[in-house]
Amino acid sequence: MRKLLLTVLSLAVLVGTAYAASDSAPTITSNAAAIQGVQTNLNYVWTLVAAALVFFMQAGFALVETGFTRAKNAINILMKNLMDFVIGSLVFWAIGFGLMFGANNGGLFGTTGFFLSDFHVGGDPWVLAFWMFQCVFAATAATIVSGAMAERTRFNAYLIYSAVVCAIIYPIFGSWAWGSLFHGGGWLEHMGFIDFAGSTVVHSIGGWAALAGAIVLGPRIGKYGKDGKPRAIHGHNIPMATLGVFILWIGWFGFNPGSTTAGDTDIAMIFVNTNLAGAAGCLTALFTSWILFKKPEIGMTLNGALAGLVGITAGCANVTPTSSIIIGAIAGILVVFSVLFIDRIKIDDPVGAVSVHGVCGAWGTLAAGLFNIGGPTAHLIIAQLTGIGTAFVWSFGCAFILFKILSATIGLRASEIEEIEGLDIHEHGGHAYDFLSTKPI
Amino acid sequence: MRKLLLTVLSLAVLVGTAYAASDSAPTITSNAAAIQGVQTNLNYVWTLVAAALVFFMQAGFALVETGFTRAKNAINILMKNLMDFVIGSLVFWAIGFGLMFGANNGGLFGTTGFFLSDFHVGGDPWVLAFWMFQCVFAATAATIVSGAMAERTRFNAYLIYSAVVCAIIYPIFGSWAWGSLFHGGGWLEHMGFIDFAGSTVVHSIGGWAALAGAIVLGPRIGKYGKDGKPRAIHGHNIPMATLGVFILWIGWFGFNPGSTTAGDTDIAMIFVNTNLAGAAGCLTALFTSWILFKKPEIGMTLNGALAGLVGITAGCANVTPTSSIIIGAIAGILVVFSVLFIDRIKIDDPVGAVSVHGVCGAWGTLAAGLFNIGGPTAHLIIAQLTGIGTAFVWSFGCAFILFKILSATIGLRASEIEEIEGLDIHEHGGHAYDFLSTKPI
Amino acid sequence: MRKLLLTVLSLAVLVGTAYAASDSAPTITSNAAAIQGVQTNLNYVWTLVAAALVFFMQAGFALVETGFTRAKNAINILMKNLMDFVIGSLVFWAIGFGLMFGANNGGLFGTTGFFLSDFHVGGDPWVLAFWMFQCVFAATAATIVSGAMAERTRFNAYLIYSAVVCAIIYPIFGSWAWGSLFHGGGWLEHMGFIDFAGSTVVHSIGGWAALAGAIVLGPRIGKYGKDGKPRAIHGHNIPMATLGVFILWIGWFGFNPGSTTAGDTDIAMIFVNTNLAGAAGCLTALFTSWILFKKPEIGMTLNGALAGLVGITAGCANVTPTSSIIIGAIAGILVVFSVLFIDRIKIDDPVGAVSVHGVCGAWGTLAAGLFNIGGPTAHLIIAQLTGIGTAFVWSFGCAFILFKILSATIGLRASEIEEIEGLDIHEHGGHAYDFLSTKPI
Repeated sequence: MRKLLLTVLSLAVLVGTAYAASDSAPTITSNAAAIQGVQTNLNYVWTLVAAALVFFMQAGFALVETGFTRAKNAINILMKNLMDFVIGSLVFWAIGFGLMFGANNGGLFGTTGFFLSDFHVGGDPWVLAFWMFQCVFAATAATIVSGAMAERTRFNAYLIYSAVVCAIIYPIFGSWAWGSLFHGGGWLEHMGFIDFAGSTVVHSIGGWAALAGAIVLGPRIGKYGKDGKPRAIHGHNIPMATLGVFILWIGWFGFNPGSTTAGDTDIAMIFVNTNLAGAAGCLTALFTSWILFKKPEIGMTLNGALAGLVGITAGCANVTPTSSIIIGAIAGILVVFSVLFIDRIKIDDPVGAVSVHGVCGAWGTLAAGLFNIGGPTAHLIIAQLTGIGTAFVWSFGCAFILFKILSATIGLRASEIEEIEGLDIHEHGGHAYDFLSTKPI
Repeated sequence: MRKLLLTVLSLAVLVGTAYAASDSAPTITSNAAAIQGVQTNLNYVWTLVAAALVFFMQAGFALVETGFTRAKNAINILMKNLMDFVIGSLVFWAIGFGLMFGANNGGLFGTTGFFLSDFHVGGDPWVLAFWMFQCVFAATAATIVSGAMAERTRFNAYLIYSAVVCAIIYPIFGSWAWGSLFHGGGWLEHMGFIDFAGSTVVHSIGGWAALAGAIVLGPRIGKYGKDGKPRAIHGHNIPMATLGVFILWIGWFGFNPGSTTAGDTDIAMIFVNTNLAGAAGCLTALFTSWILFKKPEIGMTLNGALAGLVGITAGCANVTPTSSIIIGAIAGILVVFSVLFIDRIKIDDPVGAVSVHGVCGAWGTLAAGLFNIGGPTAHLIIAQLTGIGTAFVWSFGCAFILFKILSATIGLRASEIEEIEGLDIHEHGGHAYDFLSTKPI
Repeated sequence: MRKLLLTVLSLAVLVGTAYAASDSAPTITSNAAAIQGVQTNLNYVWTLVAAALVFFMQAGFALVETGFTRAKNAINILMKNLMDFVIGSLVFWAIGFGLMFGANNGGLFGTTGFFLSDFHVGGDPWVLAFWMFQCVFAATAATIVSGAMAERTRFNAYLIYSAVVCAIIYPIFGSWAWGSLFHGGGWLEHMGFIDFAGSTVVHSIGGWAALAGAIVLGPRIGKYGKDGKPRAIHGHNIPMATLGVFILWIGWFGFNPGSTTAGDTDIAMIFVNTNLAGAAGCLTALFTSWILFKKPEIGMTLNGALAGLVGITAGCANVTPTSSIIIGAIAGILVVFSVLFIDRIKIDDPVGAVSVHGVCGAWGTLAAGLFNIGGPTAHLIIAQLTGIGTAFVWSFGCAFILFKILSATIGLRASEIEEIEGLDIHEHGGHAYDFLSTKPI
């Protein structure tokens, strides 16, 4: 992809020439430059349409997390999802993008390009298109966490967490795996680490931060009975959650194939792989829940689709469609057992975010090595395991420290009365719904 | 479209050459090849963006069908819509695509290309882009049926039906009308049958299978009074259904213009025709319901929009914008009377799927002949009527037999107690909503 | 943009030549024409994909307005939003497009091109692509008004208003600011007026018509207490309104960058500016509401995002990303104070449409001058102020007269009993929700 980017950049220069020349008679050289100019334009259109689709995933996450939790906390979780994107956009503009893609001068992260200073009026606008696409990725990593911490986290503490993830935690790991996309080289990619669209970089980073948050917070009041056994706390709006999954699925058609940042024929296989893995994960989760619980359960089935999509994100460009089905199918089974396991060890993750994004992100990254079209060399498997392990240590470690600091200072967990009566009325002064006036008077 | 496809395929070969040559000095020949390469890339981008929009129609159908039925069956209908797409994707990969577009060697359907075996690593990825677009079409045909069979169909029987439609019923008819898009030729298209984006191939096939399902199942408990007259069973969430229609409408901007599978100037008229027909159908249904019921009824109005969109699907590329308004306007009137008629003859179709997709699909296919820009020759009208009739016989016939077999074996209809108490609690062990915790405590 | 359009049109002619020549050996000239042909195709794809995104804003408006008002009027507001688009599409086809973009022969508006008569079979289809994009803009202007007039306006009067806005009020102002895009020149653009994507042309025109409507109607029953102080009438479905804002945000990625009507590198900065302004507006509205009300209020926060997006619409192509943040941030503060002010002067605008679209549209238009990359010349600021003032006088004036006429003839305001019991049951004969059957039996 680096090579492609350099090509694109050089083409952009040529295009200027070609366009300038378009008033005079065309030549072979001006035609060649103009061709590259049109391809550059197509790359912009595709990358930005894909960015719009990935943006829409924010709505998907908001609906899934709200639907799977209780009505008394609906405004709160919607606000957190919205602010993830809002704060994420602004800090990724100010800080994150520079850390992730700035020139790193042989260091561990970038140190240029803050406040989009790589761009000046009249300069190459590719940095803007690229920023836009990367920005929606950063916000996705952040928003994964809100689900695992739902129904008991203070709003102001959450805003600080959001800013830190998008400004520092996500971009620094990102610079190790993807930094060379723009300027320098990250040590993980130099090892040969494959994570095409971010099973690890986005999903596991989000998932392991979610794990840290759920651990530091502790479970919701009433989640575990006096016998210590987990109790089901049902979501309040399953149709909303289902719509959220459909929106996430269409968003993934931007997330994975858009990661080419080029409008070319490579996107076809990535589309197909993404879709087949999502379908396979959904189907195996359906049957796994059917066998375990005697009924096909919708929560697990929806998470199965997401598990399959997360699972194929790393390898979507370097495995075959048949492999994608296998990867997705395993993710769909894995997510069910992971949700049950995490529930049992008394970590309360209301929407299954740790299992879907953390666990299946790790599986997908390993699978990108195991099912690699070019073959799973020992070197590649080691690179994949190194990336998986590093992501866990970095994201879980940083987030754990951050949440402990927030806990000890401004306070991370809502008070008991707030949690029981609902964060909506206490933190935001309102209720999410009022259907009383549906009937006359 | 066949010619276009062949052109595209041959271009893809040229592109390789052009790109290989791009390090050396450009020539007129290498430029010509590169130009075709960029156009090929654009075709991929457009076809796949359109596929993503068509995928989103799954969410639209899910919301429309759920909103128009009762809350106690909401999880069930959402699950059926989700599984339509999931199972549809997998069986269309394994079987359907081969039957529809495989080489048919003069037979009635294709016999190659199962499991995407037409594609090999390093081969032409167009087959993947094309599969993706066709896959979302197949799933659309399947999902139409769930609405007509809502609130009384067993989940496991429905999964089997879904698989059969996407693996066999839809693809075999599709091979007759569209098979030549890829390999061979279908007998209907050889007759001159025009169905550009599937008024018949997708919508009527779905609609007539829905009719068979509704007949075999019989009406919901309480739908007909002791006097034999139909009673209204109101939907539970009209805003959700309305959002579903907006989503279907945007999805249709992929469905119809995407059927070019090429990013060129032809898509403009198809966009305009699609939009004008949807608007006209919505408006005439509004006024028809206003006149008949003294009030502008939202259910009919929403179905009118869908009726107009279904109606223009066959002819969107070969009628004028003015004709599109006429076609949509007639569809909007037709759908209201059709819904009332089907209700009266004691076929219980909870969402009006038979009228919207079956009846208006047939009307649209006839209209594509009547309003054909090149003129409605007798030959063309005969081809259209043949296609319409064949679709009815094939889809209604196959689906009727299938549902009868399911009925006689594993059972098609839910038990009385399941139907009364709701499929959600009995089949899936949960409720779709819980607003009790909205207010404090 | 005019120059670009002429280029596009001339290219379209060349493409024909190039394609005709494609069977013979390519030449430098045929290659040059073919390159322009591919760029033309890309322009179509981008413009129409953007149009689809803008269409989706209709769903966003419907959800925001429905969620922020009461359940007893939900069907009514959904129907109004749907019919805005439906009627808007049809009258913009018949009349509006001709007034806005027809040849104006030195007059104040266009007088050709009604019923899309600029297009004939075999002619240049660009007029169709352009119509499609402009049509979704016209409907957006219309739909803004329904929010301010919610919960008390008669349905039939609203339909007439919808038709007049899309047929006359919006297109005539549009011809002054954007008319030269196609045929002639508008007097505002000749002054140098900058409104790239319609802060004034679309949003202020809608917002000031909304103001007129809210004034003519008067406040909802119970909105003002006996002490004359405004009371909060809470929305009934905040998750729905939030989804609406997410949908509007993705729609804006079509609205602003799509206004290039060309797929080129210019769209990158417009995307980034749009996103940053939305984020900044959302964040400042959050903090403003937090300071004023002691709690971060979701209604204001959501409106802040829309305020930022409206604010950047005029200048998105001619200000820097940093300026966009400033413009959005000011809009987010402005909208909160404007909502409070309008509430206080006894104008009842249930969703804040006047503040979001009218006030922030005016601010955005001024800001496009103040932050103009080329510098804020006195001439430019005068042009901006002229455009802002003209929009107010024209839209408020026309709409005020229109609503007064409707009031005096068929009646604009629902009866007291209709308003109290809900417009849904009285005007449409139904209820939006029925959750009673959620639980068994």
